[in-house]
Amino acid sequence: MPMPWRQLPVGVVGLGLIGGSIALDLRQQGLVVHGLVHRPATAERALQRDLVDRVSTDPAVLQGCGLVVLALPLDGLLDPDPKLLAALPPQAVVTDVGSVKQPVLERWQGLHPRFVPSHPMAGTAQAGVEAGLAGLFAGRPWVATPAADTDAAALASVQDLATLLGAHWLCCPAAAHDQAVALISHLPVLVSAALLQAADRSAAAAGDELGALVRALASSGFADTTRVGGGNPQLGTLMARSNRTALLQALQGYRHSLAALEQLVQQGEWSGLQGALQVAQQLRPEFVQPDRSAG
Amino acid sequence: MPMPWRQLPVGVVGLGLIGGSIALDLRQQGLVVHGLVHRPATAERALQRDLVDRVSTDPAVLQGCGLVVLALPLDGLLDPDPKLLAALPPQAVVTDVGSVKQPVLERWQGLHPRFVPSHPMAGTAQAGVEAGLAGLFAGRPWVATPAADTDAAALASVQDLATLLGAHWLCCPAAAHDQAVALISHLPVLVSAALLQAADRSAAAAGDELGALVRALASSGFADTTRVGGGNPQLGTLMARSNRTALLQALQGYRHSLAALEQLVQQGEWSGLQGALQVAQQLRPEFVQPDRSAG
Repeated sequence: MPMPWRQLPVGVVGLGLIGGSIALDLRQQGLVVHGLVHRPATAERALQRDLVDRVSTDPAVLQGCGLVVLALPLDGLLDPDPKLLAALPPQAVVTDVGSVKQPVLERWQGLHPRFVPSHPMAGTAQAGVEAGLAGLFAGRPWVATPAADTDAAALASVQDLATLLGAHWLCCPAAAHDQAVALISHLPVLVSAALLQAADRSAAAAGDELGALVRALASSGFADTTRVGGGNPQLGTLMARSNRTALLQALQGYRHSLAALEQLVQQGEWSGLQGALQVAQQLRPEFVQPDRSAG
Repeated sequence: MPMPWRQLPVGVVGLGLIGGSIALDLRQQGLVVHGLVHRPATAERALQRDLVDRVSTDPAVLQGCGLVVLALPLDGLLDPDPKLLAALPPQAVVTDVGSVKQPVLERWQGLHPRFVPSHPMAGTAQAGVEAGLAGLFAGRPWVATPAADTDAAALASVQDLATLLGAHWLCCPAAAHDQAVALISHLPVLVSAALLQAADRSAAAAGDELGALVRALASSGFADTTRVGGGNPQLGTLMARSNRTALLQALQGYRHSLAALEQLVQQGEWSGLQGALQVAQQLRPEFVQPDRSAG
């Protein structure tokens, strides 16, 4: 027998990349989806794209939903609209998609009895109502970070949602999630942004000609290493702000790792450097599975 | 009238990715190519792949060549085989493909009167006699770093070669080239390798569960940022060793850029952090042209 939430409309708050993709997948599975958005133009476009069965800028559209996905940016989750809070059905399962979990969990623990903090880890560079696409979560991690007092049936419903969308379900403490994403997601943004700035500044310090030369010679290796550092500044800042402690710890560890490599170069310890680069070469496949590198 | 070098066989020393690709392109242009390799098995395979018209492990195969491309690894260029040196025709134009130019230039200035240091900046992750492919240099930079006493006609011949293969010809001082590649190629290797090591060590320090979690959650952003750091350790070490001074300068600049970002996070200067990430976002397209990002 399907779980109860599947027999009622699903509410999706925010129809950007994540919300829109969840809505599309749910409709393809035959579920009824109600969307809540900010702007009338977004509502109109969501209907044109057939993302939802019903959509409104009025939170009353969530009435009767058995599960509500808060597909909002982190700031919208940490400072939720009182009208949204008032409209959430008390019996509904409520989950979010925020990329930092400890502050979301702390904020929401008192706000709704059936809240389940979760993080579907999928994305593209696109945003907005045009960005949602079918199958975005297939094979991707969907992490829940329940607390001791999280409603067990609500947690099972969110697991059922994630599994229905083809995601790979994981559960861990919110603090562990935030430490992990600091290392593999937020730290790389700063490491990568610093590389762009260093290439620009160091070349500029040596004169205009070197500035032009680095721009002419930069190739795929530089492009790859700087991709996340050249991403959305608001998003990068919001993540750093919401995950500051874990990010500072990650930065400290990174500084030590880089200093160790620098010391090997400084001292001309070439066999030591080669050994360190061998360790890196061996580590990478543990993190980057072939089927995930294009995800 | 075609330039004189085109009317004689071209010698290619080493038939790996770069040498093999040069040979393939030259043959497609109707030129005659003589290959010099280390091992008989490589010679046999080069003939099977139709990379060359003639191939040998005996440097005498270079006899009669009007232009010789030294497609050897950096260590082979910096410590050249005396038998190779003895076999280079004195009238031939000689060029190399080394990724660091100052030490190659210094080493070769006394060795051959018509030596032109050059660096075709193209590559794939492949290596060896199977790796060469047609069209590898099309649209890619081919940088020459002549000294004041470099033979002008020899330089023009190498430019003609690069242009024949569809590359984008550039000339600059060897020191400028080495500073530029330190910033956009060698620094990224260390920055990226340190990220792999930091993610591994920091997670391990927090326990096995976090170690497993970072591996499960790492996705495309981490994959991109760590690609060059997980590359060939011998190659990374050889580049660091051959370009040590410029790399240490680049590392120093990088440390300052990263420390500035860390300080903004530490002090909670969120508008400052967003401004810095905006600068990075604006810088990236200056370095990464759309047509070059897949190169």
